[in-house]
Amino acid sequence: MNLQEKMRIIEDFPTKGISYKDITTILSDKEAFQEAIHQLQAPLKDLDYDYIMGIEARGFIMGAALAYAEDKGFLMARKAGKLPGHTVSYSYDLEYGKATIELDMDSVPDGARVVVLDDLLATGGTAKACAKLIEKAGGQVALALFLTELTDLPGREVLEKEGYPVVSILKWTH
Amino acid sequence: MNLQEKMRIIEDFPTKGISYKDITTILSDKEAFQEAIHQLQAPLKDLDYDYIMGIEARGFIMGAALAYAEDKGFLMARKAGKLPGHTVSYSYDLEYGKATIELDMDSVPDGARVVVLDDLLATGGTAKACAKLIEKAGGQVALALFLTELTDLPGREVLEKEGYPVVSILKWTH
Repeated sequence: MNLQEKMRIIEDFPTKGISYKDITTILSDKEAFQEAIHQLQAPLKDLDYDYIMGIEARGFIMGAALAYAEDKGFLMARKAGKLPGHTVSYSYDLEYGKATIELDMDSVPDGARVVVLDDLLATGGTAKACAKLIEKAGGQVALALFLTELTDLPGREVLEKEGYPVVSILKWTH
Repeated sequence: MNLQEKMRIIEDFPTKGISYKDITTILSDKEAFQEAIHQLQAPLKDLDYDYIMGIEARGFIMGAALAYAEDKGFLMARKAGKLPGHTVSYSYDLEYGKATIELDMDSVPDGARVVVLDDLLATGGTAKACAKLIEKAGGQVALALFLTELTDLPGREVLEKEGYPVVSILKWTH
């Protein structure tokens, strides 16, 4: 199955000039959804890791299904103020303003190896913040894994410069 | 495994007087996470349905893992403005103000049978809105399914009065 053909391109969303790569049509198609999870499992085959972390909100979808398929624990990277327990937080710059994400500190044993999972790698800002969050909580980043990557944006470079290995399944040049 | 004991109770979150039922500790514990999905699968065993709909954001987690485990398509109920395609939307009252949720209209074939999945049934407002959204898109509600239920709140009554069958796995009286 060509998963890339199962995606839907929506022009001018969320703003004019953006060609939005939409996974809605992969999720709702049961064969495509299974195939996406299986393709995400391939790079994990010989990887030593303990948890998958999904990034709110869309990263929760593939992340949780993948954690279930892999028989691993699932960690949530959430927007500030959503997690009830003791959290570590990390703030980072967006195009306009700042964002803060949080992780439940007690869910990450010292030295735990974590795969960061999101549906899309674009500028890499959010994924880098997640990686820093894992390290702040005492864990290690085993891999940054993405279903799709916009290869004309610097996300991969941003992450690799920090020493994080990066794998993406579906690549878009624009 | 007693899943209820795997949950964490956090007092006074998000506001004073609320005893928050936290699933963070179920998600991060791989055995508990598998068990939660298996317990959610039990009521689906003989049910005729096509899709699982998860409610943003926490409902995406259990919903997507369950859809993967069940080999079904996954539908997102998202906050207004997040979905890029043609959407149906439904507005409902909160304690203070209003909320609007949306569903990708093209993902729901006429007559499709959908299980609404969230981690928590409390007042039932969001789940009822999801059910109405499914009907607006031309589908039918096969079941409203919850990992946890606060039984002293009227959520179950609200949904059953509308004719939607309700199943919850873990029940809390307060």
